[in-house]
Order: sequence, then structure tokens, then C-alpha cells
Amino acid sequence: MSEPLRIALAGLGTVGGGVIRLIETNADLIARRAERRIEIVAVAARDRSKDRGVDLSRYAWEDDMTAMAARPDVDVVVELVGGSDGPALTLARNTLAAGKDLVTANKAMIAHHGLELAALAEKADAALKFEAAVAGGIPVIKSLKEGMAANDIKRVYGILNGTCNYILSTMEDTGRDFADVLAEAQAKGYAEADPTFDIDGIDAAHKLAILSSVAFGTRMDFKSVTTRGIRRLLAADIAQADVLGYYIRLIGMADTEVDASGQRRLVQRVQPHLVHRDHPLAHVDGATNAVVAEGNFVGRLLFQGAGAGDGPTASAVVADLIDIARGDIGAPFSIPVAELGEAPAAETGDRIGSAYIRFNVADRPGALAEITAAMRDAGVSIESLIQKGTPGLAAGDADTVLVHMVTHDGPESAIGRAMALLCDSPCLTEPPVVLPILDE
Amino acid sequence: MSEPLRIALAGLGTVGGGVIRLIETNADLIARRAERRIEIVAVAARDRSKDRGVDLSRYAWEDDMTAMAARPDVDVVVELVGGSDGPALTLARNTLAAGKDLVTANKAMIAHHGLELAALAEKADAALKFEAAVAGGIPVIKSLKEGMAANDIKRVYGILNGTCNYILSTMEDTGRDFADVLAEAQAKGYAEADPTFDIDGIDAAHKLAILSSVAFGTRMDFKSVTTRGIRRLLAADIAQADVLGYYIRLIGMADTEVDASGQRRLVQRVQPHLVHRDHPLAHVDGATNAVVAEGNFVGRLLFQGAGAGDGPTASAVVADLIDIARGDIGAPFSIPVAELGEAPAAETGDRIGSAYIRFNVADRPGALAEITAAMRDAGVSIESLIQKGTPGLAAGDADTVLVHMVTHDGPESAIGRAMALLCDSPCLTEPPVVLPILDE
Ligand SMILES: NC(=O)c1ccc[n+]([C@@H]2O[C@H](COP(=O)([O-])OP(=O)(O)OC[C@H]3O[C@@H](n4cnc5c(N)ncnc54)[C@H](OP(=O)(O)O)[C@@H]3O)[C@@H](O)[C@H]2O)c1
Ligand SMILES: NC(=O)c1ccc[n+]([C@@H]2O[C@H](COP(=O)([O-])OP(=O)(O)OC[C@H]3O[C@@H](n4cnc5c(N)ncnc54)[C@H](OP(=O)(O)O)[C@@H]3O)[C@@H](O)[C@H]2O)c1
Repeated sequence: MSEPLRIALAGLGTVGGGVIRLIETNADLIARRAERRIEIVAVAARDRSKDRGVDLSRYAWEDDMTAMAARPDVDVVVELVGGSDGPALTLARNTLAAGKDLVTANKAMIAHHGLELAALAEKADAALKFEAAVAGGIPVIKSLKEGMAANDIKRVYGILNGTCNYILSTMEDTGRDFADVLAEAQAKGYAEADPTFDIDGIDAAHKLAILSSVAFGTRMDFKSVTTRGIRRLLAADIAQADVLGYYIRLIGMADTEVDASGQRRLVQRVQPHLVHRDHPLAHVDGATNAVVAEGNFVGRLLFQGAGAGDGPTASAVVADLIDIARGDIGAPFSIPVAELGEAPAAETGDRIGSAYIRFNVADRPGALAEITAAMRDAGVSIESLIQKGTPGLAAGDADTVLVHMVTHDGPESAIGRAMALLCDSPCLTEPPVVLPILDE
Repeated sequence: MSEPLRIALAGLGTVGGGVIRLIETNADLIARRAERRIEIVAVAARDRSKDRGVDLSRYAWEDDMTAMAARPDVDVVVELVGGSDGPALTLARNTLAAGKDLVTANKAMIAHHGLELAALAEKADAALKFEAAVAGGIPVIKSLKEGMAANDIKRVYGILNGTCNYILSTMEDTGRDFADVLAEAQAKGYAEADPTFDIDGIDAAHKLAILSSVAFGTRMDFKSVTTRGIRRLLAADIAQADVLGYYIRLIGMADTEVDASGQRRLVQRVQPHLVHRDHPLAHVDGATNAVVAEGNFVGRLLFQGAGAGDGPTASAVVADLIDIARGDIGAPFSIPVAELGEAPAAETGDRIGSAYIRFNVADRPGALAEITAAMRDAGVSIESLIQKGTPGLAAGDADTVLVHMVTHDGPESAIGRAMALLCDSPCLTEPPVVLPILDE
């Protein structure tokens, strides 16, 4: 057996603690599969005195984690601190500049600085691996880069945020409203005290930008991801979707198009969608993640599992370490950085699809006529329209009713025009909620 | 870019034709991901004059495919002929003995001779890869060997035969009986003229033996796989399962146990199961395959996609070639052959589970009393028992009625004892059908 692979661990929180437990528990089988042992040499966190439920006395403690990159006894640095910039980024840069391999679970950092880090890694002939950054324990980066490597991948989408999926499936099961379920999720530790990154779709957008670069071989472009979260969804939306045969899921979707001039363009969006009961993503419940990828030969593949948590995330981190131990470095984004294609954001107005729209309507004469006229004038064809007697929102909104509409397939720009026509309407008490219906 | 990887293709049928089309269609992107081109040098099949819809004039033709192994202009032989022995096996042995890499989709050959071939490959420092042999386009071998490499895998199971799943889901959708749906599937080309390997579970058993060796790091043991197919299932079983909240799926299941002496033992079985509506495998329809694997850190992962067909299978074959082109050889069964553990078959009588049992009962007094007495005497606890008025089988069986039973959780040996008590009973017109209920 070769020399052990010596690693330094920065960050000893949920994921870092999990990695230590995993490496200790499964040491022998890891050594068999990696054909060498994986040895933790040094660790770092903020607070040296915190009890982390694991015995750290065997490992050197670094007060300044960025110094790990310079340790001559370390082959790989594992960054499990978090944050797109700051010390995590400094450590990542130093590690790769020192010619050492870097493994990270930090989607924010990879989404913002992945290309720069990949270029550093290539220059140093070092590995940059981030399986844990997307969909936790699911080996989706490996599956896209290697398992589907023979395919032109056309589209990749999925449920990328466990917190949102937990909230949506709990709203579904209990009929309760968003704010109520969020508060409970926070109390139970399923949602952060500041849940913005999760529920506004930013975390999913980080993951989507990474997925689409790996899948399509294009330069990562996080700022072009259109992001809408789940804050505005009501129990009534979920109930109405159910009647129509759908579930509501926060979907990150990356799709490729070729424009009139032959330029490949990308659509990258995170937003709640209606997902038909027969679609495999409809049955993904709780904090589970799932990713669908479509290749020109393999067709549609689905990967499903735990998207977060100490065990699953550690499993992905250590899989990256085993690859490195086996000498499998690979290009971080599937092809060398210099060959990654440019893919400007698509003009999405021409995309054809159907949508669910919910209007909060002031309960007064002519409201429905105004909405339907706007649809007609914008060229949106209505498949169904439901106005229930139930008041839209609780106390204080007694004179608001909800109108639910499903459109026929048509260009997205038409719905945009209809929304523009209605934007100043006194009939609406708040802006409509538009949810695309995921096609099969 | 390095020298091209030069391959010889033996077998130009469904999969071989797909591989040629894929390598030609996606040549540039394959070269980018593999960092070298993949070039077909030579091809072989039985009939040189057959039109295969691809232009073969660029490739050397070998009349005797086993000679491919000796060609100095070939790095990798791709065996897509089939058959556990015969020319495919000769070619495989010659290839590895010559120090060349072998890629195959041949599950029968790997299930029977995989260990011998892996030992040859190790000796020659050559690759032996067979992603396409299990679950077609789904990268499940890679996911078990690499994506889940950090985990002690406890159990792996799934829907491994698309023909059976197509037949079962068509029976489900149409209410038609097995023979009728099989005949249609044969007419449509979804089932072979001789469907034995598929519908009797042998094909799934080949795949299961391979999966379990890779997942558990144990010596492959195909002969210990208990195999029961789907021939005896009736539309009435499917209808009754549906009433109870289940779908019937042919499941290949490999599970590990540790016996009293500390010896790890394997349960390997292919048989139809009742799968609860809430289980992700319940919604796997048509010819789709799906595999669930459970690791001690990652929890439960699901992989789903096309299990057969030219495009998906070719996708897996070429993924293996890209790995080889990138220099990623790896141990065929995840660890070196010498380190694969022995895992004798478990004594399964102690396993606890519940089951669905269908009895074809001669319509005469005392039949139910006899069945229920046998259950009581064997110690099987009955959860529900349904006897419908409908005759069990069509013409000629007008005096047979069906009795459907669901048992409470209990040891499997008790059900075995009850069946033994009933085996000579004149009350039963044929042996009962026992289907385990898949636990969550
Ligand atoms: N949690 C998940 O399920 C999950 C899943 C996928 C990806 N990730 C990613 O994994 C990373 C870590 O997540 P986590 O949930 O493990 O976070 P966490 O529990 O908050 O742990 C963060 C760790 O980083 C340490 N740290 C923070 N700032 C530091 C500094 N300046 N110098 C040294 N150490 C510092 C903290 O030290 P103290 O303990 O001393 O405070 C703590 O040990 C993040 O990038 C996250 O996005 C997490
Ligand atoms: N079909 C699938 O979807 C699928 C999926 C997964 C795995 N597989 C596996 O892939 C392998 C190939 O399957 P397939 O469906 O492609 O089979 P196929 O369509 O029957 O093709 C078999 C090919 O092998 C050639 N062949 C047979 N005997 C030969 C011999 N003695 N010498 C030279 N060539 C010979 C045949 O030549 P002629 O064309 O001249 O008759 C034919 O081209 C099998 O191991 C199968 O289990 C298939």
C-alpha cells in the first residue's frame, strides 16, 4: 500500500465533524478502496475549546487556518468553513497556489470563484473537488462529469435545497401556511435563523450555476441565474395545485438553447414550479434532493438522496478524497478552463410553456373582467380559471379573494405582457404569483 | 492532446451500433472530456454483409473477433456480443492476457467469470469495466465504487430488468394478464422471442450478483442468488396489491447480515415484491430501471434511468472508455480481487418481514379453514385475508377462487412451514404465490 494521503481539515462544524467521524469509523474500508490510508494531520476552527464530540487531541491544531496551505506534512486541504469570500477563499487560493489539492463543500465560494480556483488548480496540476457542494451526499458532479461524459447534456434540473423542499412538503401535508411552517422548521433546526439564502433560492442558485457549468462545459455564470424563492406561496396555492394534479417544488433549472445566430445560450433559473404527479420529482419529499439530467444518448437520469446533513455531506467530501488518493484528479468543471464555452443568457421570452398564476383580487365588480381582458390583449390563452369563495389571506384581508389560473402553452413573453398590463390595476391587492409548470 | 485511444468493437448489434453512432456523433465533446480522441480501429460481427445503418468502411473488419486481442493497433477491446461463455469469453481472456483493456456490457459473462477476468486484468495492470452490464445507462457501478466509496454499504436493491418492469406496469395500467402482455411486448420488440432470461429473473440475478460484489467488496457468488420470476403473477394480484396500497415490482435485493459467529453473510434474491406507493421504486414505470443503495453515512441513494436500449447502453460503454482514456483504471470490483471478502449465503429463515400470499383455492367447503389452520400451526400471523367472488383463472378454472392474504411481520421460516403444511392439500389447485413486502 502506498503512503497515506495526509489531509488538513478547516472547519469543524456540521460537515467537518461528520468528516472526522466518517474517516475514523470507516478507516479500513476507505483504505481498501483508496489503496492507501487517509490520515487527518491538522484541524482548525474558530473556538479551540468547543466540545465537538470527537477526540481532536491526535490532530495538530492550527490557530490560523490559512496557514494549513503551507504545512509540508499536508497533501490535501479540506475547506468546510463556508462563505463565498473571506478566510475560506484565502485558504483555497493559498492551498492551490502551494500545489496542494483542495476539497470543499462550499457552494457559495465555488459559484463565485470556481473558475479562478479551477485555473489555479490546473496550473498547479492539483485537484479542485466539490462534490459535497451540490446536492449533499448525491454523487451528481461525478455522474455528470464521468457517468454521463459521453453525452451532450441538454438540460439539468432538480430539487437543490432541502430546507425549501421540507417547508413545501410540510405545507402540503399539513395545509399550513409558509410563515408558520418556516418558524417550526427553524425551531427544529431544519432552517437557519437567517433563512434568506435558502428560502429566497440563493443557495439553490449557487448549486445550479455549478451544475450547469459541469454539465454543459460552459463558463460558470452565477449572476445570470434568475432566482425566485418560496416566500410568497400560500397553502391555497398548494391546495389548488393538488386539485389540478400537481405538487409545488422549488426547481433549479438549467437549459440550453441555440439562438438564430447559432450561439448557444443558457437559461438558468431557480423558481417554484408546478410538478405533475407523474413526474419523478413530484414524489421527492422532506429534505431530500434530486437532480434530473438529460443526455442525447442516455436520455433522462434521476439521482436522489439526502442533500445535506453531516453524514451525507461527509460521504461526498470523503469520496473526493478517495478519488484524489487513487490519483483521479480530473478537470474541476469536466474540461480544462480554457476550453469552457461562453454561453450568454438566453432571451427567454420565446420559450414556450404553461403556467399557474394566482391573483389576489380586491373583491369588487369587474375584477375578473379586467384580468381576463389583460390576458386576451397580451395573447395569453387561458386553460382554466378558478375563483373560490374562500378569502385569500387571513385577518385584515377579508375583502381579498384568490383567483387561480392555468394557461395553455404559449410564449413566456405573453405572460410578462399580461402582468405588465395588470401591474397598476386597483383590482389586485398584490402582484400575481406566476409559477411555470414543469414539462415532462 | 495525447494520442487517441484506439478501440476494437466486437458485436455490432443493438449496443454495438449504438456505440458507433455515439462515438461518431459526440466525437468532439468526448475528446474534450477524455483529453484525447477515441478512435474505432476494427470491428467484428457474424455477418459482414448486414446493413447496420452505419458506415463501416472506415474500420478494419475482423472475421475472427477473438483475433482483435492481438492487434498491435488496438488499446481497448469492447465486447458487445453476449453469452456467458463461448467467443465472448475467449475474446475477454485473450484481451486481458495481452495486457489490453476490456470494456463489456455482458452481464452473463461478468456474473459467471468476473472474478477470473478481474484477476487477469490486475495481473496485466489493465482495465476491466462493465458499467453497461448493470442498469444500462445508469452510472450505478461508478456510483457504488466511487461516489459511495466512503460508505459501508449495507444493502443494494432495485428494478434491474426493464422487460419485466414493462410487463408489470402494463398489467397494472391495463388490467390484462401476464401471457397477453408478454405476447404484445414480444410483438413490439420489448421482449425477446425467448424471454426466459428476463421473465424468470435470470438477467436481473446476473446484475444483482455484480452489484453486490461491487457494493460489499465480496467475491461474486451468482449461484447463491435465489431467483423467482414474474410468470405466475395474475392481473388479480396486481389489482389486489393496488387495493392494499402497493405496486408489484420485480426486485433484485442484496443485503448483508452478520451471523452468530461474527461471519458476514449475504442475502441475494430476485423476486417480485409488493412495493408501497410511498416508496420511490413504486413509481418506476415502463422499461425504466432504478437502483437504491444504502450507506452508513450517506443514507439511501436512488439512481434511475433507462436500463437498456442502444443509446443508454452505449452511453455507459463510452463512459467506461472515457475513464480509460483519462487513465482511471480502478479495481473492477472496487477493491483488489485478493481482498474481496468471502460472504456465504445467509440462512434466511430468521429474516423478519411480511408477505402477500395468493392461494388458488378449489371452491369447496373447508378450504379457508385448512389454510388458516396451517398458518396458525406454522406460527404465521394474518393481518388480512380477502376472498373475492371472482373466479381465479379464465375458462377451465371456473371452480377456482383466489384468496389473498397479507401476513404480519414474522420470520420467513414460518411462512415456509405453512407452505409445507399445505403442499399436498387438495384444497389448493396450484402452489401459492408468496411475495415479500418491501420494507421502507
Ligand atoms: N451543513 C450541511 O448539511 C452542508 C451541506 C452541504 C454543504 N455545506 C457547506 O459546508 C460548509 C460548512 O458547513 P457547516 O454546516 O459544517 O457549517 P458550520 O456548522 O457553521 O461549521 C463551520 C465551521 O467553520 C469554522 N469557522 C468559521 N469561521 C472560521 C474562521 N474564520 N477560521 C476558522 N474556522 C472558522 C467554525 O468554527 P467554530 O466551530 O469554532 O465556530 C465551524 O467549525 C459550508 O460551505 C456549507 O455551505 C454544508
Ligand atoms: N440491448 C440492450 O439494451 C443491452 C443492454 C445492456 C447490456 N446488453 C448486453 O450487450 C451485449 C450485446 O447485446 P445486443 O443487444 O447488442 O445484442 P445483439 O443485438 O444480438 O448483437 C450481438 C452482436 O454480436 C454479434 N455476434 C454474435 N455472435 C458472434 C460471433 N460468434 N462472432 C462475432 N460476432 C458475433 C452479432 O453479429 P451479427 O449482427 O452479424 O448477427 C451482433 O452484431 C449482450 O451481452 C447484452 O447482454 C444489451
